[in-house]
Amino acid sequence: MHEQPLAVALVSGGLDSMVSAALAREAGYRLLALSVDYNQRHRVELAAAGRVAAALGAERHVVMPLDLRAFGGSALTDDIAVPKDGPGEGIPVTYVPARNTIFLSLALGWAEAAGARDIWIGVHSLDYAGYPDCRPEFVRAFERLAEVATKAGVEGRPFQVHAPLMTNTKADNVREAARLGLDLSITWSCYDPAPGDRHCGLCDTCRLRIDGFAEAGVPDPTDYAARP
Amino acid sequence: MHEQPLAVALVSGGLDSMVSAALAREAGYRLLALSVDYNQRHRVELAAAGRVAAALGAERHVVMPLDLRAFGGSALTDDIAVPKDGPGEGIPVTYVPARNTIFLSLALGWAEAAGARDIWIGVHSLDYAGYPDCRPEFVRAFERLAEVATKAGVEGRPFQVHAPLMTNTKADNVREAARLGLDLSITWSCYDPAPGDRHCGLCDTCRLRIDGFAEAGVPDPTDYAARP
Repeated sequence: MHEQPLAVALVSGGLDSMVSAALAREAGYRLLALSVDYNQRHRVELAAAGRVAAALGAERHVVMPLDLRAFGGSALTDDIAVPKDGPGEGIPVTYVPARNTIFLSLALGWAEAAGARDIWIGVHSLDYAGYPDCRPEFVRAFERLAEVATKAGVEGRPFQVHAPLMTNTKADNVREAARLGLDLSITWSCYDPAPGDRHCGLCDTCRLRIDGFAEAGVPDPTDYAARP
Repeated sequence: MHEQPLAVALVSGGLDSMVSAALAREAGYRLLALSVDYNQRHRVELAAAGRVAAALGAERHVVMPLDLRAFGGSALTDDIAVPKDGPGEGIPVTYVPARNTIFLSLALGWAEAAGARDIWIGVHSLDYAGYPDCRPEFVRAFERLAEVATKAGVEGRPFQVHAPLMTNTKADNVREAARLGLDLSITWSCYDPAPGDRHCGLCDTCRLRIDGFAEAGVPDPTDYAARP
């Protein structure tokens, strides 16, 4: 019997990365789930990441502490208000400098150490046109880097970064979750949790989540503290 | 008066990164010094990094805890013996999967958050032909990645990764340190410290250090526990 290959799946606790990791499992991979505790304002997502990793049967779940507050520069790590009045123009203040570069680098380190060749990440470029590190050119540039940066790459065993949701809308991801039979009630999206660890309902990612379920015609199991 | 630009300098505590950071200072940059506590076997190098950052007048020194033991795969983080019988063929067991990719990603995050456009790293490809992430193609691939990965890059303010020692030998670096008037006695090279925090004298980096001083004709201030 041919053993199933290992993949490192970045799991934030959010809806998208649950779908991405579930697609990896559907494609036949055994999962190593990686989350990063970067002292994000919404650290409650890490508990969700644990639930997601367990629900998907990950063989291991590493929550790597990495305190990006030391660098600053984002509403997600600093005392900068998270916008509540809907998406604006340009790159949002919730952009965290080089976050996905750092996350993919950690995934690459684990993948190489574990003998995995595949990394799965749930980014998509449509809803967050503003985040540079959620675009196809970013993912391709990272693959090229991994090829020259690692022992495995140099020895002819390059890494593949799978971003299966790249051209999806949030509604597409909700539909895909329904197809896969995923329980999205265990996931967490909100950037600025309301008291009692409830989704605030007003930040950009809450709005995208609300609209995504509505547009997909799938009942939204989320408990929002407010509605736009 | 024109303000001097900021640069993030990766400072390991070793000889090479001290020379690299000193060249950044000589080039007119104010320094943000970044070290990573990755639970390396030779964590004593972090004390050296603090001495180096202070000696070079860094405006800030961040020692970022990042426990790469969680991933494994290297003699520097696992219970794998560090070779003592001189350099062998191929990529050494002291290779840490994706280490410099991870370090440069962190430097990139800090640089973008601080408004710096420049990152300095002390890698050189000659002595460690075996480390894929010490080669010019790695540095160039990372610059290309940074351009598409960051808000600054997308907005037309790309990052430059300076690796001024790339084609140097260790002896060249020792000579450069002498020219710059650096006190190399505060630096640390050994991968496998002997009792009392002395350089072991037998691991690959101790051998390179010993030979580098000898070849440069510069007195070696290092206290070695043994000699090859």
